[in-house]
Amino acid sequence: MSILIKNALLLPIDDEMTVVENGYVIIEEDTIAAMGAGPAPDVSGTEVVDADGDVLMPGMVNPHCHMAMTLFRGLGEDVDDRLYRYVLPMERKFVTPEMVRVGTRLAALELIEAGVTAVADMYYFEAEVGRAVDEAGIRGVVGQTIADFDPPDHRTIDEGFALTEKLVAEFRGHDRVVPSIAPHAPYSTDIAVMNRVARWSDDHPDVPVQIHLAEMASEMEWCAKNYGMRPVEVVEKAGLLKKGLICAHCLHVNESDIEKMAHAKVCVAHNARSNAKAGRGIAPVEAMRKAGIPVGIATDGPMSGNTLDLFSQFAPVSMFQKLLGHSRKPMPAAEVIRMATIEAARVLSLDRQIGSLKPGKKADLIRIDLSAPRMQPVYDVYATLVFSAMPADVRDVMVAGRWLMRDREVLSLERKKIMRDALQIARQFKAEMARIDAGA
Amino acid sequence: MSILIKNALLLPIDDEMTVVENGYVIIEEDTIAAMGAGPAPDVSGTEVVDADGDVLMPGMVNPHCHMAMTLFRGLGEDVDDRLYRYVLPMERKFVTPEMVRVGTRLAALELIEAGVTAVADMYYFEAEVGRAVDEAGIRGVVGQTIADFDPPDHRTIDEGFALTEKLVAEFRGHDRVVPSIAPHAPYSTDIAVMNRVARWSDDHPDVPVQIHLAEMASEMEWCAKNYGMRPVEVVEKAGLLKKGLICAHCLHVNESDIEKMAHAKVCVAHNARSNAKAGRGIAPVEAMRKAGIPVGIATDGPMSGNTLDLFSQFAPVSMFQKLLGHSRKPMPAAEVIRMATIEAARVLSLDRQIGSLKPGKKADLIRIDLSAPRMQPVYDVYATLVFSAMPADVRDVMVAGRWLMRDREVLSLERKKIMRDALQIARQFKAEMARIDAGA
Repeated sequence: MSILIKNALLLPIDDEMTVVENGYVIIEEDTIAAMGAGPAPDVSGTEVVDADGDVLMPGMVNPHCHMAMTLFRGLGEDVDDRLYRYVLPMERKFVTPEMVRVGTRLAALELIEAGVTAVADMYYFEAEVGRAVDEAGIRGVVGQTIADFDPPDHRTIDEGFALTEKLVAEFRGHDRVVPSIAPHAPYSTDIAVMNRVARWSDDHPDVPVQIHLAEMASEMEWCAKNYGMRPVEVVEKAGLLKKGLICAHCLHVNESDIEKMAHAKVCVAHNARSNAKAGRGIAPVEAMRKAGIPVGIATDGPMSGNTLDLFSQFAPVSMFQKLLGHSRKPMPAAEVIRMATIEAARVLSLDRQIGSLKPGKKADLIRIDLSAPRMQPVYDVYATLVFSAMPADVRDVMVAGRWLMRDREVLSLERKKIMRDALQIARQFKAEMARIDAGA
Repeated sequence: MSILIKNALLLPIDDEMTVVENGYVIIEEDTIAAMGAGPAPDVSGTEVVDADGDVLMPGMVNPHCHMAMTLFRGLGEDVDDRLYRYVLPMERKFVTPEMVRVGTRLAALELIEAGVTAVADMYYFEAEVGRAVDEAGIRGVVGQTIADFDPPDHRTIDEGFALTEKLVAEFRGHDRVVPSIAPHAPYSTDIAVMNRVARWSDDHPDVPVQIHLAEMASEMEWCAKNYGMRPVEVVEKAGLLKKGLICAHCLHVNESDIEKMAHAKVCVAHNARSNAKAGRGIAPVEAMRKAGIPVGIATDGPMSGNTLDLFSQFAPVSMFQKLLGHSRKPMPAAEVIRMATIEAARVLSLDRQIGSLKPGKKADLIRIDLSAPRMQPVYDVYATLVFSAMPADVRDVMVAGRWLMRDREVLSLERKKIMRDALQIARQFKAEMARIDAGA
């Protein structure tokens, strides 16, 4: 059984950012079989979908997230010391496989509703994340965190590696779930541990490595004090700065850091809202991209960026670079969309399968309705997507040839149960916050 | 006939930013008659609406807009010289009463769908704006532009004043439409003209004055070169810096300017996205508010900010002040919501009628559904509204006791006709852009 989607405003996301009016796509099994402009060919035995002029584009890719943290969304907003006041104590107390499962399912529901079809995650009990991603039908690079700060799922680094090995064994060869290892950050994972990850990674070249890098002023100070180095230099010294490393944040990178990163062929997940909401600053995205580093638009966890959709990031991503450049020109709309699709796929080393629409690639695609008054008229469809479109405009979502959402109804997940489970855990969190606040 | 809305998460927007669970509001004619917490009283002969736990709050107030420019939305995005390349020539050629009517109707549709119930406008043929606002059922402060640059509707300043007099005559005493006069900006309206507006305003104390102020580096240079002064000083010298003046932008204001503005009791419309998208910078909102200046959150025209909803402004407004303050603390979520409601109403001198919910105030209110996965859980409803809510979450909109939208269907405007008319004009604009680009 194949599927034909016709009469679409097709955005394949090629080098020229071509816009195809009246385009069609033919999907066979999990793959794009053909596509083109003009009247669609007659394919017998085919499900035919008339896109009615809506945008058809690749599913979006969110290359840095902590999905299960949906359950913490908005908790301690505007509080500077919330990490030590609420988050770490509550994570230690409440993060269980069950909590990770519930929080990740809620995240998956939100991602599908927003047209995000692939996500990179870093958290705890990561096998649960992999299972929830699998169940939701989306793609995920699921990273088991390795850290020194007594995290909820491993008391020793050996235990952390054991969890990673189990994760890799469970998902090796999976179509959509890629197991990954995630040393937390230079300030929270000893350089010897990072070096151990680097050596482990040499033996597991198909397992992507994710890390938080050069995110905070306090991290700069910590690295200077403990190593006499900048964070990028610490990671380099650990042997971890190598091809395909997914580096989240990278706010505090100077010319020399960027040169090292480009030379090593690492990738960057840019978290505009998360960085700005914490008052941390603006990452030099234009400079990194100019150096040839792929930069994808990410959300960070929902406690930091609140939502997991990329639409909410688009205007900030663009505005921040325009502010840095004192001009309207930097980070034009088409580039923003590129960074949410093919470039983000490259960040996750998935660009041979996804991130653009062309025959032979996986059929991960979304349909976006531009008819809301707030989006009209359309002079430049990329500007419309970046500055006017919102998650509620996404109508249909397909991953690997399977419909995950039709006409705003998510088909792969049980919405009511997910919401009920999430709110039950949130009630416990609220009670704990009240206890913390009463004791303070 | 009265209306009872019950079982709401009521946000009256009082000094304490109280959150009332299970709240109700009773509306008689165009006014809030009663409100409270707990089970609603039994009022016979009343339309009863069960809000099902949704947020009920005052309609939002957008204190700076150029509504008719919806027709230019996204045109020349990312182009630095677009003002001289496209906008001014196209305005001269295409801005007619008909174009203003169509563009303003499209804007009104978008405003209602986004829960914005009052708007301040500055444009040309402003009587058309007033009529479209009236027809839409929202509130508007409609400002006739007065400018030196040969604008589309007046060749001389005398003609500009004549248009203003006609506007005032047409709308004097109107329930929802407040006529206003709008000298364009210190760089585009001669100081003698601004002084004439100031004297005219002395004779018309009920007509609000709006101006663009301290928006651009080029404006600073122009004022320095022509007057040896800063823009705020020029406006002061013209006699225009006085109580209730609605100043849009105010990016380039120093301590001395802020002191003058606070002393004169002027108000500010803050256009975060518009300012940032142009690479112009971040207005010192915290400093202005600390000085006692009311600051409302505005969108600017849709060519600058793209959308007219305030949700799209919330995260930028908050993030920008957190970036300036290098901390999570500045501009907390509850303050953002205050600046979108009661404080914006104060900017328009409408705070005795609207901007908060309390008995005796006009029944301008909106219902917002928080059930989308992207908004759950809710630990702090203001954080949810600022960082997760979007226009599509607004379900119902009421102005002066009249439903303008129920369950996302706008009742006061003909959507299909408006969209058709808008797209017809947009086709002319596209053809003109092509001509300009071909000739360049």
